[in-house]
Amino acid sequence: MDERVREHAAVLVDWSAQVEAGDDVVVSVGPDAHDLAVAVARELGERGANLLATYSSAELTRAYLTAHDGDFDEDPAHELGLYEGADVVLSIGGGRNTAAMADVPGELQGAHRKAHSGVREARYDTRWVSTRHPTRSLAQQAGMAYEEYRDFAYDAILRDWESLAAEMANMKDILDAGSTVRLVKPGTDLTMSIEGRTAVNSAASVRYDSHNLPSGEVFTAPYDTEGVVTFDVPMTINGAAVRDVRLEFDGGEVVDFEAGEGEDALGAILETDPGARRLGELGIGMNRGIDRFTDNILFDEKMGDTVHLAVGRAYDACLPEGESGNESAVHTDMITDVSEDARLEVDGEVVQRNGTFRWETGFEG
Amino acid sequence: MDERVREHAAVLVDWSAQVEAGDDVVVSVGPDAHDLAVAVARELGERGANLLATYSSAELTRAYLTAHDGDFDEDPAHELGLYEGADVVLSIGGGRNTAAMADVPGELQGAHRKAHSGVREARYDTRWVSTRHPTRSLAQQAGMAYEEYRDFAYDAILRDWESLAAEMANMKDILDAGSTVRLVKPGTDLTMSIEGRTAVNSAASVRYDSHNLPSGEVFTAPYDTEGVVTFDVPMTINGAAVRDVRLEFDGGEVVDFEAGEGEDALGAILETDPGARRLGELGIGMNRGIDRFTDNILFDEKMGDTVHLAVGRAYDACLPEGESGNESAVHTDMITDVSEDARLEVDGEVVQRNGTFRWETGFEG
Repeated sequence: MDERVREHAAVLVDWSAQVEAGDDVVVSVGPDAHDLAVAVARELGERGANLLATYSSAELTRAYLTAHDGDFDEDPAHELGLYEGADVVLSIGGGRNTAAMADVPGELQGAHRKAHSGVREARYDTRWVSTRHPTRSLAQQAGMAYEEYRDFAYDAILRDWESLAAEMANMKDILDAGSTVRLVKPGTDLTMSIEGRTAVNSAASVRYDSHNLPSGEVFTAPYDTEGVVTFDVPMTINGAAVRDVRLEFDGGEVVDFEAGEGEDALGAILETDPGARRLGELGIGMNRGIDRFTDNILFDEKMGDTVHLAVGRAYDACLPEGESGNESAVHTDMITDVSEDARLEVDGEVVQRNGTFRWETGFEG
Repeated sequence: MDERVREHAAVLVDWSAQVEAGDDVVVSVGPDAHDLAVAVARELGERGANLLATYSSAELTRAYLTAHDGDFDEDPAHELGLYEGADVVLSIGGGRNTAAMADVPGELQGAHRKAHSGVREARYDTRWVSTRHPTRSLAQQAGMAYEEYRDFAYDAILRDWESLAAEMANMKDILDAGSTVRLVKPGTDLTMSIEGRTAVNSAASVRYDSHNLPSGEVFTAPYDTEGVVTFDVPMTINGAAVRDVRLEFDGGEVVDFEAGEGEDALGAILETDPGARRLGELGIGMNRGIDRFTDNILFDEKMGDTVHLAVGRAYDACLPEGESGNESAVHTDMITDVSEDARLEVDGEVVQRNGTFRWETGFEG
């Protein structure tokens, strides 16, 4: 076994999920993520945590959904019992075909997601972390050789997270003190309110309310969005390729949308529920260990020189205690490249121009 | 996909587990059982049942157990919640190496099993069914080519279960009316009481209190066992090869044991708890679709011309309502060939001699 698989498992269990003896841990295993799951099982055994592994296969989900009449039972008791009893959920993605869901109607996926809102809440109430085992299918999606892709993935994952957290604290401080964010680039002029919201210094650990490994972004939960935004980074939504998305917001809601490719998949997401037409997240990528787009949102959205927005659910960590933000069965991220001809303003002051932050050398205000 | 995979899934879901709309179903998927799991997912979707897939990997279990200090938490809440909420549990075995647990100390496995007694009870309270997807590792274990093994497995699984159930009813009637069973062959003279116990016509359906696919045996829960029995069919217990077992019973308990091979694995089973030294099952193999030993207990114990006994847990279906039989964290089957020089008596009357039953032509009383 590649020693980095063991290191990945150790970072996931220790740094990311902060697993302790007695924790009831669900490990969700993708069909090609077996090796990482074995390494994680060893880490959990060493810590005296309790392991239950679930099987997360897009092919299974496709077979199930396409055979179903679409009238899904709400929050099945066995699934709810599992997540309500869990302290930690570690999702280890790694399938064999990133397009395995390509022919499943978005409405069907949306109906299934909606029927599982209680299950989802229970899972979000745990110390959950999502990661990916570098597989051949992810390498193919990225247009990279398998070994090359593994190097890429571990460069992003096996980082000095403490020092990245210290750098990202700069951005969090600016957002926490600010009221309005404006993003400007060709085809984009978008304004959002962030007043009263708390930014998350997403350093790949539940200690920071950060639930992705790799991470390396600072995000918050915007509202009252106005204007137009274009997303020029290619992405895959529910197995469908989506390109060149343009969203127009009025009164906080998407009032018009188009896509150069995959408009149906985008439309299905936006039509899931009313919250799917509002923003749930503004994120600023700060992981410079990620040096290229690989058509994998978990990595792409963390890349330096990018900003992403998600329609749908807002994370509670960004909201005042007890207050609920935008609610939705979906949370779909879309990315825009800010390396050129772009600026990010907070309360009228430029905090990032052409990818360079205010506190970095070479910044032009 | 081999059409027989779909047929296997349909038999499992319809005949075996009697799945209906709204059932909360756990599907336990072995690492190489993916194709059958996909077919089962489709069947569940068609029926409007609710699917949660778990991942059952001996390699994961090995990594977890060998890293653990052995002081396992009892009945973790997430696992208990899953099975307490489930109506049906379908275990689809199919690993990549039947010896994957070979170096895990039996004591550690026993301690883990003991700590999960509540979870196990919850699982047994569902309409559970165990089956196997024919994999290359099972073919290897059987000493057969992969295609040859698939033909063998589907001949055993895709049967006319209704008509086999009708034939097996003969044996059930004899056992239900009887008080004492005696098994005699070279090296074996064993007497057991079955008074007050009910035999199960194990026709691979929960309708018959039968939980294996394939099945094809009639079994009951004996007690007050006296005498000696030898098991001459090779088997694998917790990943270890076990051969030529001899058990001596006195007062219902194993008082002496030996094995030509694998004595440690056998000893670990017997030492799990007090119930592991008493019989939990007497089974009579009646599936003549199984025409050879394949070193896989699920198939071997159902073969015609064999009798098997299990140390450990007795199944509730054999017991008077509300009465509990032998209790144990284990249930380990061992098989003896009765095709030659052997007879099975109930209350002093021979019911099977050299593999031929009383109601069959060629029977010599």
